Amino acid sequence: MRLSRYFLPVLKETPAEAQIASHRLMLRAGMIKQASAGIYSWLPLGFRVLKKIEQIVHEEQIRAGHIPMLMPTIQPADLWQESGRYNAYGPEMLRIRDRHDRDMLYGPTNEEMITDIFRTHVSSYKDLPLTLYHIQWKFRDEIRPRFGVMRGREFYMKDGYNFDLDYDSAIHAYNRHMVSYLRTYERMGLQAIPMRADSGPIGGEDTHEFLVLAETGESEVFYDSAITDLKLGSRDVDFDDRDACAEIVREWTTPYARTDETHDPHRFAEVPEERRRTSRGIEVGQIFYFGTKYSEPMGAMVNTADGQRVPVHMGSHGIGVSRLLGAIIEASHDEAGIIWPEGVTPFHCGIVNLKQGDGEADGACAKLYQALCDRGLDPLYDDRAERAGAKFATMDLIGLPWRLTVGPRGLKNGVVELTSRRTGESEELSPEAAIDRVAQIYDPHLKAANVQHWEPMAHRSSHTWL
Amino acid sequence: MRLSRYFLPVLKETPAEAQIASHRLMLRAGMIKQASAGIYSWLPLGFRVLKKIEQIVHEEQIRAGHIPMLMPTIQPADLWQESGRYNAYGPEMLRIRDRHDRDMLYGPTNEEMITDIFRTHVSSYKDLPLTLYHIQWKFRDEIRPRFGVMRGREFYMKDGYNFDLDYDSAIHAYNRHMVSYLRTYERMGLQAIPMRADSGPIGGEDTHEFLVLAETGESEVFYDSAITDLKLGSRDVDFDDRDACAEIVREWTTPYARTDETHDPHRFAEVPEERRRTSRGIEVGQIFYFGTKYSEPMGAMVNTADGQRVPVHMGSHGIGVSRLLGAIIEASHDEAGIIWPEGVTPFHCGIVNLKQGDGEADGACAKLYQALCDRGLDPLYDDRAERAGAKFATMDLIGLPWRLTVGPRGLKNGVVELTSRRTGESEELSPEAAIDRVAQIYDPHLKAANVQHWEPMAHRSSHTWL
Repeated sequence: MRLSRYFLPVLKETPAEAQIASHRLMLRAGMIKQASAGIYSWLPLGFRVLKKIEQIVHEEQIRAGHIPMLMPTIQPADLWQESGRYNAYGPEMLRIRDRHDRDMLYGPTNEEMITDIFRTHVSSYKDLPLTLYHIQWKFRDEIRPRFGVMRGREFYMKDGYNFDLDYDSAIHAYNRHMVSYLRTYERMGLQAIPMRADSGPIGGEDTHEFLVLAETGESEVFYDSAITDLKLGSRDVDFDDRDACAEIVREWTTPYARTDETHDPHRFAEVPEERRRTSRGIEVGQIFYFGTKYSEPMGAMVNTADGQRVPVHMGSHGIGVSRLLGAIIEASHDEAGIIWPEGVTPFHCGIVNLKQGDGEADGACAKLYQALCDRGLDPLYDDRAERAGAKFATMDLIGLPWRLTVGPRGLKNGVVELTSRRTGESEELSPEAAIDRVAQIYDPHLKAANVQHWEPMAHRSSHTWL
Repeated sequence: MRLSRYFLPVLKETPAEAQIASHRLMLRAGMIKQASAGIYSWLPLGFRVLKKIEQIVHEEQIRAGHIPMLMPTIQPADLWQESGRYNAYGPEMLRIRDRHDRDMLYGPTNEEMITDIFRTHVSSYKDLPLTLYHIQWKFRDEIRPRFGVMRGREFYMKDGYNFDLDYDSAIHAYNRHMVSYLRTYERMGLQAIPMRADSGPIGGEDTHEFLVLAETGESEVFYDSAITDLKLGSRDVDFDDRDACAEIVREWTTPYARTDETHDPHRFAEVPEERRRTSRGIEVGQIFYFGTKYSEPMGAMVNTADGQRVPVHMGSHGIGVSRLLGAIIEASHDEAGIIWPEGVTPFHCGIVNLKQGDGEADGACAKLYQALCDRGLDPLYDDRAERAGAKFATMDLIGLPWRLTVGPRGLKNGVVELTSRRTGESEELSPEAAIDRVAQIYDPHLKAANVQHWEPMAHRSSHTWL
């Protein structure tokens, strides 16, 4: 993308209403604009990151064998009356009356609706196990929305639902979700720690939250530093293998890690003192096993192999897609702006032309741009007639992890400059070497996007993520 | 995808509530489930087609130089009071009151919100021309929703907005949209005819609707059959070239084509009698030029090069993404089910194993499946232990354009059968030749997905569509 043809309305002033770094930086970098309290428009740069995050979530869900679909935003009230949550949910539910005076609501979550789909279409153990998910806009009418997309009212969320014949199978679904979430967050450059949690209004016995460590987090967290050394990395996980998934879950849940809600000071005291950590965390996901909490009242039953009718075992599993943008920025920024992890950056590389209008510099930039595109990368070329300082400030603010700087002086020596946004370090390279270097940096990220067959022929994604 | 692991709840019975073919077939093929009147869940198969259509719309918008972003579903009422449309819109607008008693609404369209974004961030002619678009869920509280996704209440729409300094530039934006829409519909296997239309509640002078010919269309249409011979095909369009775009628009708007709303019997009588056609049509898109209708009352002004402040010229341009599924099915089905055009089919090819459990047949299917995947295609392999007739009926119902049938008898002769859903014709081929043949069929469709640079380095999409 050429910046001269893009819509990137960066702000010079720090918006007064923004209390935390991510909110401030998303406004300043022209990523979002508030439409009303807790409701945002995603300007082109913000939209790109939102879609990158959504794409990673899809890929990792599909890799784990889960099936994408889409439920609507507006739900009928009667399903919620059936489950008993309509009155229980409180004023955070946005209640709507349509022109025929029917009670509707803007879905804050989808347990009822997915259970209704299941009971309509599935009646045999033969169709189990089944995990369906969607990524859809939700609404929670927060009394005091704040912190930008971190605590918005209209927010984008992945919520998935597993249906299993028995407890063991449902716990495998739980474990599979935990493993797929670990991989999802790692690909976004985040360390998200699973912590035993309270179940809240969803209900259920087993539940873990995933928390990203950041000073601005809403929860106080207590953990054994051993957990921050764990990495899934490029491990090849067979999501059909119950033992393998359970083993990874054991690995991540053995070190102590709790939020203030579930904190147990006695158990924490058993952690060796030098590994005891207290910090703050941002919740970016949660998984639940809740058994037959919805299937019993709503009659979601299946016939077993020996002819019994039993309620199906369920769980639900959420990732806050729009919230993740805020969490990533909270975990990765500095005074000058955002520092995007390579996995979610809106553009892979910035190109700054130090002397726009100079034939040689323009030509070199054009060639670099084309060569990066040909390698499957998306560069952002600042081709405006601005001074170098302003161009650097914009690139730093919007946080592209790599920048190529091109000017007549360097070109005379046959080099361009490659700069890391994170370290600030630069190196001079020939244009060809710089292109190779950037392509090499992104190679593992492009490869990670390929959903491998976790079971021969079961699931794959092609150039689209379906 | 293996059917045994997918969620494809096909119905044997024809649902009584469905009055038209697309509604009936989408329910029977397990593509949608009604959540409440005019509101649908998109089951996995329906979701795949929805995403394919969305993807084509994105690719063609980006090819034309338009910039994707995303506005929220819930809007504040005050923007609509500013434009004067809040009271004018009537009961189709879903009005909502939040917990603080603020008046909100579920957006039926986004002229006000995009104008607000524009006026906040753009003030100079230097930032023009600019075209922003999004694909987002909309709501219109139809008094009598019907025909499935064709006249739903919650629907998915692409709406784009151009901002130009003067009339000529805005008309070029209008023309650019018409050309990009022609290409968009062609890629979906549709012939959508642009017809001069009434502007309705959006307002404006110039407007064309795009109509797909189908018996169940809501509009009566009158046209010169010469228009149905026109094809954009693989023409390489430079979307920056005003004359080139205007010439294509002239080509498509010269033959008579009107809906009943704008029909002019005198002009129609001038069409040679043998080319005069009367039919019915389904509206799948509309483009508008409305000048300063929103920019004047809302104060969206820009400074010109000579220091004047002038209201910006605007237009809006919509494609009914969810509605298109219905329109495509209306235009392409038979007694047995849907017949998907190759451009939007949920899976490229079905594989039917005539003897599941037979080692040789299973092995041959597995190899075919893998080979198709390796060519970048998505096959659907019916690996259930069902009789052949049931497998064929399912494949015909869900409408995959190509089917490979694999059985022990054919394998003994070294062949599998490739069948066209559209013609019913089969040919026997070696597995290798069959794979080549299917790959060849889809080659132009995979190539069409590559967004070429319409202006050197201006816009591109990579493996994602951003």
